[in-house]
Amino acid sequence: MATTTIGAAPDSRAERTRRAIVQAALEVFLQHGYVGATTDEVAARAAVSKQTLYRNFADKEHLFADVVLDATVTVAGDLAAAALANLDGAGDVPEALRRFGRSFAAGLLRPDVIRLRRLVIAEADRFPDVARAWFERGFEQMLGTLGAALQRLADRGLVTRLDDPRRAAYQLAALIMYEPMNTAMFGGTDAAPDAAELDRIVASAVAVFLAHYGTDTARGGVRRRSSTR
Amino acid sequence: MATTTIGAAPDSRAERTRRAIVQAALEVFLQHGYVGATTDEVAARAAVSKQTLYRNFADKEHLFADVVLDATVTVAGDLAAAALANLDGAGDVPEALRRFGRSFAAGLLRPDVIRLRRLVIAEADRFPDVARAWFERGFEQMLGTLGAALQRLADRGLVTRLDDPRRAAYQLAALIMYEPMNTAMFGGTDAAPDAAELDRIVASAVAVFLAHYGTDTARGGVRRRSSTR
Repeated sequence: MATTTIGAAPDSRAERTRRAIVQAALEVFLQHGYVGATTDEVAARAAVSKQTLYRNFADKEHLFADVVLDATVTVAGDLAAAALANLDGAGDVPEALRRFGRSFAAGLLRPDVIRLRRLVIAEADRFPDVARAWFERGFEQMLGTLGAALQRLADRGLVTRLDDPRRAAYQLAALIMYEPMNTAMFGGTDAAPDAAELDRIVASAVAVFLAHYGTDTARGGVRRRSSTR
Repeated sequence: MATTTIGAAPDSRAERTRRAIVQAALEVFLQHGYVGATTDEVAARAAVSKQTLYRNFADKEHLFADVVLDATVTVAGDLAAAALANLDGAGDVPEALRRFGRSFAAGLLRPDVIRLRRLVIAEADRFPDVARAWFERGFEQMLGTLGAALQRLADRGLVTRLDDPRRAAYQLAALIMYEPMNTAMFGGTDAAPDAAELDRIVASAVAVFLAHYGTDTARGGVRRRSSTR
């Protein structure tokens, strides 16, 4: 999980080359920012010629857009998979939400994801389409998947009052991510809370979330558990 | 409320000059970013000589740090005042929290505050001290004030289960701000939800918050109100 890896398996030499360029470009953009990055360095790091680079990507702008979109789709896909793995089929809803929360937080607080997020925000005025793509195909997509998983829990009678699954997903993500993400954004990439603190944040987030959306069983589970901590 | 105004009244000509420079610099940084801003333009806009500017601020780095800190302290102070005005002495806790939430969101979603926040994040690697100051003297300060106000509500028996007032403040802010702030950060400065949508976000945030932290009276108030919407 140390670097953003790309989802689909390379299926041809052309595709492998394209992926090598995207991976190299991600590293160069994260290291130097948009303005400081050069296609020379990207080509060198990907071990391709400048001609090959420009055959695949019209210019630095298009390369940046593709790199961000690629990473966005990958991260959102990983987190959607975590939501499905933890919530679908869950019996103990509080524990399943806590497990999801820890994996969600760990995925979004990876240093490369934090740095990429900062880069996208920094360039939001220069590249509004890139920021919007990050938001729509990453953020909103991920929370849509979480909302659908919450809806399936509601269908099984395990959560309640779910009038607006999308908003409930935002609220769960908010309760988990607001504190650690702001700490990481402003306090520095490595300032994110340690694992023990993150566990406390997630446990408290799930308790608040289920106080509203939980069934009596789920809320009882949270209270019992809280009182033993 | 259209621009970030500076808190303390000018008390001397030197202080007025310094404030004019800070205000001009804020506008120039917001317009051109850190790299694009020049002290020539700041001096011209503040109607002072370059010598006067450099007598007050050693260089562009120091000017940037002072401008951000100034705006941070002002915004945090305004929002702390809103917390105090709405929560201290409140009888109807759900309504008071909703009023606070609307004013909190409106303050943080002002276009100049959004642009400044984006600038601070963009420059967090170049100026870690500035980002940390924004976080500690703005963000954490503001949430500390909110936490203390929640503690006073708990002392009056109006909220409960407040084991960690600072965390509860983060959770309330999270429930209110996560959705609109991410929309504004990535969707563009003007993409923040409209007033009606913000009202719905705040009402739902307060309902979730009070499901956990509210007394039975407060929760009842929320549920009665929700059912009439």
